[in-house]
Amino acid sequence: MKTRAAVAWKAGAPLTVETIEIGGPKPGEVLVEIMATGVCHTDAYTLSGADPEGLFPAILGHEGAGIVREVGAGVTSLKPGDHVIPLYTPECRQCKTCLSQRSNLCTAIRATQGKGVMPDGTSRFACDGGEVFHYMGCSTFSNFTVLPEIALAKVREDAPFDKICYIGCGVTTGIGAVINTAKVWPGANVVVFGLGGIGLNVIQGARMVGADKIVGVDLNPAKVEMAKKFGMTHFVNPAEVGHDKVVQAIVDLTGGGADFSFECIGLPVTMRQALECCHRGWGESIIIGVAASGQEISTRPFQLVTGRVWKGTAFGGARGRTDVPKIVDWYMEGKIEIDSLITHTMPLDEINTAFDLMHEGKSIRSVVTF
Amino acid sequence: MKTRAAVAWKAGAPLTVETIEIGGPKPGEVLVEIMATGVCHTDAYTLSGADPEGLFPAILGHEGAGIVREVGAGVTSLKPGDHVIPLYTPECRQCKTCLSQRSNLCTAIRATQGKGVMPDGTSRFACDGGEVFHYMGCSTFSNFTVLPEIALAKVREDAPFDKICYIGCGVTTGIGAVINTAKVWPGANVVVFGLGGIGLNVIQGARMVGADKIVGVDLNPAKVEMAKKFGMTHFVNPAEVGHDKVVQAIVDLTGGGADFSFECIGLPVTMRQALECCHRGWGESIIIGVAASGQEISTRPFQLVTGRVWKGTAFGGARGRTDVPKIVDWYMEGKIEIDSLITHTMPLDEINTAFDLMHEGKSIRSVVTF
Repeated sequence: MKTRAAVAWKAGAPLTVETIEIGGPKPGEVLVEIMATGVCHTDAYTLSGADPEGLFPAILGHEGAGIVREVGAGVTSLKPGDHVIPLYTPECRQCKTCLSQRSNLCTAIRATQGKGVMPDGTSRFACDGGEVFHYMGCSTFSNFTVLPEIALAKVREDAPFDKICYIGCGVTTGIGAVINTAKVWPGANVVVFGLGGIGLNVIQGARMVGADKIVGVDLNPAKVEMAKKFGMTHFVNPAEVGHDKVVQAIVDLTGGGADFSFECIGLPVTMRQALECCHRGWGESIIIGVAASGQEISTRPFQLVTGRVWKGTAFGGARGRTDVPKIVDWYMEGKIEIDSLITHTMPLDEINTAFDLMHEGKSIRSVVTF
Repeated sequence: MKTRAAVAWKAGAPLTVETIEIGGPKPGEVLVEIMATGVCHTDAYTLSGADPEGLFPAILGHEGAGIVREVGAGVTSLKPGDHVIPLYTPECRQCKTCLSQRSNLCTAIRATQGKGVMPDGTSRFACDGGEVFHYMGCSTFSNFTVLPEIALAKVREDAPFDKICYIGCGVTTGIGAVINTAKVWPGANVVVFGLGGIGLNVIQGARMVGADKIVGVDLNPAKVEMAKKFGMTHFVNPAEVGHDKVVQAIVDLTGGGADFSFECIGLPVTMRQALECCHRGWGESIIIGVAASGQEISTRPFQLVTGRVWKGTAFGGARGRTDVPKIVDWYMEGKIEIDSLITHTMPLDEINTAFDLMHEGKSIRSVVTF
């Protein structure tokens, strides 16, 4: 069949909306009609050409929501009509990692996903007679896409697609880092580096679990108002306190250091600050931001020997099929907020505007609807 | 009163055994007759002058065992005749850190301990009319020493001093890192960098809690026999597999990476290898070794974002007054071994020989008896 999709033909060029060919679902696969998709920094990172694993041409997008339209042979957990959120981190419940119950980084389809193809080694997309790669196993910038059954979370049918698509990446990454990776406890002091979309979701996650002080760190004071709305209690601007005094300012503000810090920027310098502002004895720092290829983090080992812990998280430590439906519920119950984070909504034809708004710092999240 | 002690007059010089003056215990303090003391790398580090916090003249030593001879006013948990192990990490059970129940790094007397004096800001030691500093709050190279009540673990009276003194540092550091900091689970794969005294205690701790593979990493094949006796199941020699292939060799040997790794050397390069040989998704690396002043560790943040955890430990995460008596019990019950680790025993007059044996790599642990 044919569908409309925004195709990334090459690094550094705008996407072009094309009518492409999409193959039907093979065994274990599911055809999904994407109803809405967020446009995320990771899409922009790959599109820029900086991602060493980026493949072209490809259909980007990994933050979607849609409806199952057809299932391949052997699919048992989904049927046409089910509402779903695609998962770039699948949950097979059978691999060593899933069975370990210690990590969400399912390895069932990792090898092929990284190569831009389905688990059988082939692509379902073609345009002008040539193969087009999948992206992060999702390719939500296509109105129809194909995913493995294990990479789809079934969610309630009364949830609006143009909001819950954000749960497919940013919301779950931020809130999940708090509840799954850090396991923030009630009364903890939390510090969040970077008040973009991820940082705001960390903040509302921290508020949800009863954190005490929630300190935001950002160079842009314009972000304070929204962050306070999401639960930020204190703000530190490195441009005001001095970049070399950020750690001390946070230690002073928290009465000894953060119980948990979250780096939501992707810079080695802030990753180090996030670790070193943690409380001696037990403070844990969680890296969420993605650093540029080849960059390294460093610190003195004394920081760790005196009890700080350095961790990272991907997709918020969430097991997608199990946890994503719960986060949809929390949104529908009003426990978390998403609407105000979605600052722009646009049709597929205007998807390049979403990238422009992101680069200009004008959006928190743009959502494309089909 | 007078007592005999080995005094470190200045950095880089041998100790000299002197008859010194020792003041009696003030309120909250305890006079202890040291019966035996280990000689540890940390003593040698400070004596070398490389320790930026080293003070001279001082009475070094922090790994002792002895008998309470006198208690100051207000001391309630100890009485003359009690057998005790001095604690360079005290346990006041009242400070923020003790009450957090998340760390053993009690801060009650940290400030004065670091300055080489008792909590009231004065020293109990003098020699030739001049003040001599305490060291790590212990100074076990003196036949009699004074410690705060909160820095003494009361232990059973049938345990031999010349063996359990080692529990005052090395044994607890290694075994504690396994059970308190890492919380190694039965069936875990464990990797130990450095097969010195600490590494051997990590190995026997891992064996005690039911680890599966216990992989030792060392440049010296002469250490294999003893390590196997303590529970090592596999050995990797970086000189044989190639220093740049150590990580891959361990990943291969453990079927994907270590569940837990322990760095017991103190070098940034092995600290990085120890982290990066951990299993994707959940592997935790614990730094035990003390790096030289100013050295830094580094890695790519991707290592953490994909689920590895970087930690450190001091005194094995043990709360001294609570945990040290248990480890003495384990030794007396035969659950752990100490005797074969103490390769040399000598009188105080020969204490410099203990440092020589250490530097020559001929001892695992030397113990000085009074």
